Amino acid sequence: MSNRISRLFNVKYPIIQGGMIWCSGWKLASAVSNAGGLGLIGAGSMYPDILREHIQKAKKATNLPFGVNVPLIYPDIEDLMKIIIDEGVKIVFTSAGNPKIWTKHLQDEGIKVAHVIANSKFAAKCEEAGVDAIVAEGFEAGGHNGFEETTTLTLIPKVREQTILPLIAAGGIATGRQMLSAMVLGADGVQIGSRFVASEESSAHTNFKNAVVDAKEGGTDLMLKKLIPVRLIKNEFQQRVKQAENNGASKTELTEILGKARAKLGMFEGDTVEGELEIGQVSSIIDSIKPAGHIINDIVLEYKVAKEQLNHIKYSF
Amino acid sequence: MSNRISRLFNVKYPIIQGGMIWCSGWKLASAVSNAGGLGLIGAGSMYPDILREHIQKAKKATNLPFGVNVPLIYPDIEDLMKIIIDEGVKIVFTSAGNPKIWTKHLQDEGIKVAHVIANSKFAAKCEEAGVDAIVAEGFEAGGHNGFEETTTLTLIPKVREQTILPLIAAGGIATGRQMLSAMVLGADGVQIGSRFVASEESSAHTNFKNAVVDAKEGGTDLMLKKLIPVRLIKNEFQQRVKQAENNGASKTELTEILGKARAKLGMFEGDTVEGELEIGQVSSIIDSIKPAGHIINDIVLEYKVAKEQLNHIKYSF
Repeated sequence: MSNRISRLFNVKYPIIQGGMIWCSGWKLASAVSNAGGLGLIGAGSMYPDILREHIQKAKKATNLPFGVNVPLIYPDIEDLMKIIIDEGVKIVFTSAGNPKIWTKHLQDEGIKVAHVIANSKFAAKCEEAGVDAIVAEGFEAGGHNGFEETTTLTLIPKVREQTILPLIAAGGIATGRQMLSAMVLGADGVQIGSRFVASEESSAHTNFKNAVVDAKEGGTDLMLKKLIPVRLIKNEFQQRVKQAENNGASKTELTEILGKARAKLGMFEGDTVEGELEIGQVSSIIDSIKPAGHIINDIVLEYKVAKEQLNHIKYSF
Repeated sequence: MSNRISRLFNVKYPIIQGGMIWCSGWKLASAVSNAGGLGLIGAGSMYPDILREHIQKAKKATNLPFGVNVPLIYPDIEDLMKIIIDEGVKIVFTSAGNPKIWTKHLQDEGIKVAHVIANSKFAAKCEEAGVDAIVAEGFEAGGHNGFEETTTLTLIPKVREQTILPLIAAGGIATGRQMLSAMVLGADGVQIGSRFVASEESSAHTNFKNAVVDAKEGGTDLMLKKLIPVRLIKNEFQQRVKQAENNGASKTELTEILGKARAKLGMFEGDTVEGELEIGQVSSIIDSIKPAGHIINDIVLEYKVAKEQLNHIKYSF
């Protein structure tokens, strides 16, 4: 336990499986934790009772630490947080909101809190809120995304300039080589989403998992920038949004095209034509569906190989 | 000379100063080459006679190798290439076009050829054309950019999968730490643009250099995607384009707003309000104007420090 992220969360590897709507329930989170990473249950797509069920199942499936990701825009957030505290969850990742509102309260219950940002100016707010760690997520990430479009390669050094807090890099990371690359930039750990969508234990629909494996370079696009930017696999729904955006569609028109429950339709129910398929650019280098534990092992091995290779003459001058 | 990029170009460090319109003339290119990097004259903004003058001055200013960057869409390209060959330039970087057309011809004259791509599918085309090296440039880069918006962190591993050719990473790289990060991903060297715009020897107008130093995170945007995507500093001109794009402006309307010679107006003549200011996202971490030789020294030192730090316990698990 040599790294401050692994120490903070009491896990073997500083590898966090991102909490993702419709994809990361108890099965994925516990599989990742059992393999030495930190698994997160994605509460964003769960009713409070469903979250309770997932936490209870995760506790049975692993004795190792796991956490819950909570988007702070969640409507019944008090209920959600109460369940997290009641069930004795020890790690919470918050996103999409102000970290000041919940951090202290959770910490008073003995919970470690990490907060997700996409802009270094929020690093100061995270420090003021007293979070235990920061996740900085770049433009290439799947799902909801920052307005500044700062890529991970640019964002991580910038956030590192602003804070001494433990820092977790996210966006564009699926391999151990990319993990080491992010660590070189100043991160202490990584959060990986897309790679775990295409895992056996992910609750994503098989059609969605296959779409991730099939995704080619340039196969995703950052859409709906007039609402909240979201990275999606290109499909018929996305093309309709693109067309509307190219024609200058208003917020109202875009909201109407989006409609309701499209993420569930695509990611959980498997409609890859009309559904919203949230995934990162790095899907272009994901080519298989594996057990989460194998993915963790692959990443650790790739990381170690990449680190060893730095002793090669290629890197010396 | 231990690295295959430094050997290929016969330079001390595998650091290439990107050829940039209005910014990289003989003064910058020779300063970079004298400091152990590879300086490139950016021919894209030069009439053939001007290019000849710059090459001749560079030859007087350095005994070390330098090169010329040629966008293949250049109208009088035959004239340009003739001058390059006549003047005995030994390194040419081509971009924005098909590498098959010129590579063999240039190589027959003893010239090493690198070609710039933004999508791994062009790596195969580069191999077929027989180029000596590939530059893969990510979404965060300044100036003209790919349509797929693939970031450097995602692009480099993808290109590395497709080719064994020497590979130069570009986009989002301004520090030695970022350089090492790109090398870990599979690059053999880096091309750096924005950092050298803000150098003493750059021919950018002082106003533009200051705008680069002043640029904050989120201070650039990828514009004109209906024409050719180009990353610009946000200013009044850019806001006008943005507004038009949000309203669904057509190619014709955008071409009209763009008008002529805006890049020169902004970058060379210093109109930071109405000019087109092409720069990368990494401008947000550039905070000074230094001699190019100091920049090279900084990058090499940062690289070495970052590499040494990998022996720290933080990186071991």
